[in-house]
Amino acid sequence: MKEGKVRHAIGVDFGGTFIKMALVSEKGEVQARAKIPTKEAVGLDGWMDAVAKGMEQLCGKKGVGAGELLGIGVGVPGFVDYERGFIYDLANVPGWTGVHLAPQMEKRFKAHVRIDNDVNAMALGECTFGAGRAYQHAVFVTLGTGVGGGLLINNKLYRGAYSMAGEVGHMTIVMDGVKSPQGRGGLEQYVGNRRIVERAVKQLEQGKASLIRDMVKGDWSAITPEVIGQAANKGEKLALDVYDFVADCLAAAFASVTYLIQPQAFIVGGGVAQSGSILFDPLRKHLGERLSPFFAERIEVKTAELGNDAGVIGAATLVMMD
Amino acid sequence: MKEGKVRHAIGVDFGGTFIKMALVSEKGEVQARAKIPTKEAVGLDGWMDAVAKGMEQLCGKKGVGAGELLGIGVGVPGFVDYERGFIYDLANVPGWTGVHLAPQMEKRFKAHVRIDNDVNAMALGECTFGAGRAYQHAVFVTLGTGVGGGLLINNKLYRGAYSMAGEVGHMTIVMDGVKSPQGRGGLEQYVGNRRIVERAVKQLEQGKASLIRDMVKGDWSAITPEVIGQAANKGEKLALDVYDFVADCLAAAFASVTYLIQPQAFIVGGGVAQSGSILFDPLRKHLGERLSPFFAERIEVKTAELGNDAGVIGAATLVMMD
Repeated sequence: MKEGKVRHAIGVDFGGTFIKMALVSEKGEVQARAKIPTKEAVGLDGWMDAVAKGMEQLCGKKGVGAGELLGIGVGVPGFVDYERGFIYDLANVPGWTGVHLAPQMEKRFKAHVRIDNDVNAMALGECTFGAGRAYQHAVFVTLGTGVGGGLLINNKLYRGAYSMAGEVGHMTIVMDGVKSPQGRGGLEQYVGNRRIVERAVKQLEQGKASLIRDMVKGDWSAITPEVIGQAANKGEKLALDVYDFVADCLAAAFASVTYLIQPQAFIVGGGVAQSGSILFDPLRKHLGERLSPFFAERIEVKTAELGNDAGVIGAATLVMMD
Repeated sequence: MKEGKVRHAIGVDFGGTFIKMALVSEKGEVQARAKIPTKEAVGLDGWMDAVAKGMEQLCGKKGVGAGELLGIGVGVPGFVDYERGFIYDLANVPGWTGVHLAPQMEKRFKAHVRIDNDVNAMALGECTFGAGRAYQHAVFVTLGTGVGGGLLINNKLYRGAYSMAGEVGHMTIVMDGVKSPQGRGGLEQYVGNRRIVERAVKQLEQGKASLIRDMVKGDWSAITPEVIGQAANKGEKLALDVYDFVADCLAAAFASVTYLIQPQAFIVGGGVAQSGSILFDPLRKHLGERLSPFFAERIEVKTAELGNDAGVIGAATLVMMD
């Protein structure tokens, strides 16, 4: 590294709708952004063309030469062998089964390339540059359609024996609970976005009075976790109850995580985490109830800090940490 | 290390009833054993005198000089700061609160000393010399009055932020379940020895026919998990049902562990694990049901191999691995 010269990496956040890219400094700052609709990048070659175009834009804007890059990190929405840079399968992007992406990108871009699951990448980003930067041992959890997670152990992302450790969303919270392809009574079956909406709708159907009814003008298909969150922030009981339940389910899983691996902190991101104190207050309270005092006093629960940039910063971090 | 010369360590398994000691070779073989009633070793000085006497016996028997020892490892039944060799508190041994044991032992014995929780020590022993020796990532679980555990991650014992990671017994399996000082619905509240007995007794009280009734001649206080296990091994339905429930509870927690840290194997020891296939067959079956096929195919569940020597071998291993 040249003295005084800040180096950069490219972060690629490969989503089902957009390929988001950014030029990220080694201090974790986003210097430039690009965004390509996923449907315009057809097949592996089309995808690499899109990434090449994005890189030209990003580097051109900032006058960064390709040779000055630390490399390209890619976060993908699916199951990956990190060591080999191999994609087993992407859940929501057709045609990406069994793709040995890293070597092909290295050949084309003449750059150091790392591929990981998108949530693992976000976890690494948050634990390097975001809310988890002060910890050696932390657990990142993202709340959305599903519940994903990633583990920081001894300051490194821990991927387990099969590259996909940190699947907090499939941890058992009710052994005789809801069945899913991943087992039974998993956290995600209670706090995934759809489940949160279902829980509110069920109570509305029972005729319970609620602000939510007016907010969506009686159109229950317009109810989202955000709408429920807005109602909760206005002090609406039904909505607060839904968030309290979500918080307690999370606390049950977080208690398991705490007893098993004893992290210093949980970093919680994703849509539902934007609701703020209506989620975090009951989450901290219930987690405290579910732990012995020694751990209740020590464990921290924090909101993720990188927001919409978490994916690209995390992906870029993959090549900075090597 | 001198070439060709096998070195040894002393393992001390400090229990509520006995202090068990052994001279253990660096291949994990027990060369000599000693056993001192805990009540004869009063106070820290009394305890160190007892250990000194035990060491003389062990080394004398085998003609091993104190200078040839790799050190002394101690497993204790309680809460420890491994890095400092400090005992916070031992649950069942009065007078052992806030004892900075390692430096005091090092001064007296002029030897390298390591102190750890007894279950952590056993986990390290099993993962070095026992059923877990082939794995890089494994989880050791011991079934008894309580349910303890220890984690092998990247071939090392992982202790977490507070020296006590691996508390599988307190992981949530029923979020609205049995309350305890450690939280709610924890595994141990369903599969600890007393809970197993309670479950059988409850069904006997309901008048259900069972071999167990005859085996204990109507004296329900004589019912133990072993008695129930014997009945199950004879094909007794009530007893098999109890073991099936225990296995499913374990499977619910093991599924959580698998999704979180993705070990290669579980190593299960302790009294109830001696029951053999009546526990392990339903455990493997239920764990398979509770995991996606990818993990169900890969995860292994094995019986611990070191038996009654697990404590002393594990303790000795603490100083071999440094």
